[in-house]
Amino acid sequence: MTKRSGLVRHLGERRLIQWFQELITPYEKALLSGIEDAVAVSFNDDAIVVNSDMLVSSTDVLPGMTAREIAWKAGVMGLSDLAAKGALPWGILVSLGLPPDTDANFAAALVSGLNSVCREHDTYYLGGDTNQCLELVIDCTAFGSVPKKYLIRRSGARAGDIVAVTGEFGYTAALFKAVLNEQQKTIKLPTKIREKALHPTARIREGHALAIANLVSAAIDSSDGLAWSLHELANASRVGFQINSLPIPSLCLKFAAQNKLDAIDLALYGGEEFELVLTIPVEKWPEAQATIHNMNGQLFPIGKVVDDPEQMLIMNAEERVIEPKGYEHFSE
Amino acid sequence: MTKRSGLVRHLGERRLIQWFQELITPYEKALLSGIEDAVAVSFNDDAIVVNSDMLVSSTDVLPGMTAREIAWKAGVMGLSDLAAKGALPWGILVSLGLPPDTDANFAAALVSGLNSVCREHDTYYLGGDTNQCLELVIDCTAFGSVPKKYLIRRSGARAGDIVAVTGEFGYTAALFKAVLNEQQKTIKLPTKIREKALHPTARIREGHALAIANLVSAAIDSSDGLAWSLHELANASRVGFQINSLPIPSLCLKFAAQNKLDAIDLALYGGEEFELVLTIPVEKWPEAQATIHNMNGQLFPIGKVVDDPEQMLIMNAEERVIEPKGYEHFSE
Repeated sequence: MTKRSGLVRHLGERRLIQWFQELITPYEKALLSGIEDAVAVSFNDDAIVVNSDMLVSSTDVLPGMTAREIAWKAGVMGLSDLAAKGALPWGILVSLGLPPDTDANFAAALVSGLNSVCREHDTYYLGGDTNQCLELVIDCTAFGSVPKKYLIRRSGARAGDIVAVTGEFGYTAALFKAVLNEQQKTIKLPTKIREKALHPTARIREGHALAIANLVSAAIDSSDGLAWSLHELANASRVGFQINSLPIPSLCLKFAAQNKLDAIDLALYGGEEFELVLTIPVEKWPEAQATIHNMNGQLFPIGKVVDDPEQMLIMNAEERVIEPKGYEHFSE
Repeated sequence: MTKRSGLVRHLGERRLIQWFQELITPYEKALLSGIEDAVAVSFNDDAIVVNSDMLVSSTDVLPGMTAREIAWKAGVMGLSDLAAKGALPWGILVSLGLPPDTDANFAAALVSGLNSVCREHDTYYLGGDTNQCLELVIDCTAFGSVPKKYLIRRSGARAGDIVAVTGEFGYTAALFKAVLNEQQKTIKLPTKIREKALHPTARIREGHALAIANLVSAAIDSSDGLAWSLHELANASRVGFQINSLPIPSLCLKFAAQNKLDAIDLALYGGEEFELVLTIPVEKWPEAQATIHNMNGQLFPIGKVVDDPEQMLIMNAEERVIEPKGYEHFSE
């Protein structure tokens, strides 16, 4: 084992994860594996897809979030990676770490909220583990399946494909700006933005419908931020993206203007939004759009896949580089 | 939702879990579900079995444990519940919570240890999630499958069945006694006991071999302590147990005698041992024993199943009641 020096906080999450990846024995039956993503194993004609995401109070819970909002976020975090693979979940398991001084009603509201977020996504809270911990930790494991031939990967984007997203961006970054500004109280956040940011939906239905109609060449969820997700998807496919527009809700445009913030920055670098970022072959675009519209979903084309991975990720309007930035643990 | 009063530390883990269970919508395709146990869902002819177990530093890590020993324990905790269902694991996912001041080598040794414990159990460390947390948390999710008709449940024990275990008991309790006594330094722990306690094996091979030969009527792992596991198994099957002997290693008998401790108490109330507790129909006992001995495993008969759930769990030798005790979080 290569020796690593220093503390994890000096390394940053992404370097740490690269190192971890080197220490792990690969498995030949794994269709997907990765230390920071859903995994999938081959089982007869199906891919069994499993994803764990840990919510930690000190880094993931904003001031004023209710137990139900915290539970909702934890559940969507777990489920969203299955959506990006096209898998339908059977259920979730939740490991809870609770400080001993947690109010019992708060704990029950967490469990009840986890049950609700499951039912909202047509799945079930099946079990888990309960522990004492110095801070609130909710580790949500979602598991399900998709026929192997329909499993969506990150690596299939080809030049000419349309880049699309399943929803609008900006609510979460606006909420974060307001929270960080809490001392100064110069930013006023509309209630609607807060609600939108704290009640995301994992795009399970959209991901599965597009997958089983074989309409998607690559996908990822945007939980690490749109910019970061675009980079991940482009890197995994060894292509570039040329992004022409972003769906930003008028509420966020107005919020940005009022507070002298850049709305495109809000959309790109927010994180913790749970839309799918997809690439779709041009000839399949009309069917993809019809599929999503028939289920009352949304599908916004935002750009196209280009061959050159170097010159990628330029906003057409003002030729702006989309930086590979997003939220990172252990970054000083 | 029923209102609950007080703090979780006043309630204790088991009451808390009972309450949680009431808040969850049941799923008709779940073959097994439970807020503190492995879950299983029906998928064609198979049961997909998933289990999450969270290791938390402040309650689960003893002073002096190495990163490798901590990782080993976390992995075995996750895998052991699959063994009790007869399932073979495909792999584990691990959500890591690391304090920012964790040494990078320690973190890498955790990952490397998790990989080792997987390879030792003929399975794989497939992925997970890495987070910043106030204390070290390792949530290990193991997942795999077993043909549905061979899935072992807790509820199938019948009067007359033989109660058996896959290994000896007492090492972990001896280690705990020594650790709790650290200030006084009056207890000397043999290195061999420490090693045995900190390098458990999940009985995956034994559980699966017995399951697919259809030799087991009910099973549980002993991670919550032998006494507690016996009670759980008996309660789930609505039967009683009459326990006649316990396999206690000579090292633990000697340790108990030297330190004026009750060796049977050490075996019963230790916890964090990962043997299987099984019930086996009498007519299948010879085949069960042959199956396990052929794989160089161990199978100790410790008593028999009786009809009366009230008069249960008496040690024959001295008519001692086995109390439903084990480690409990949030117990003051």
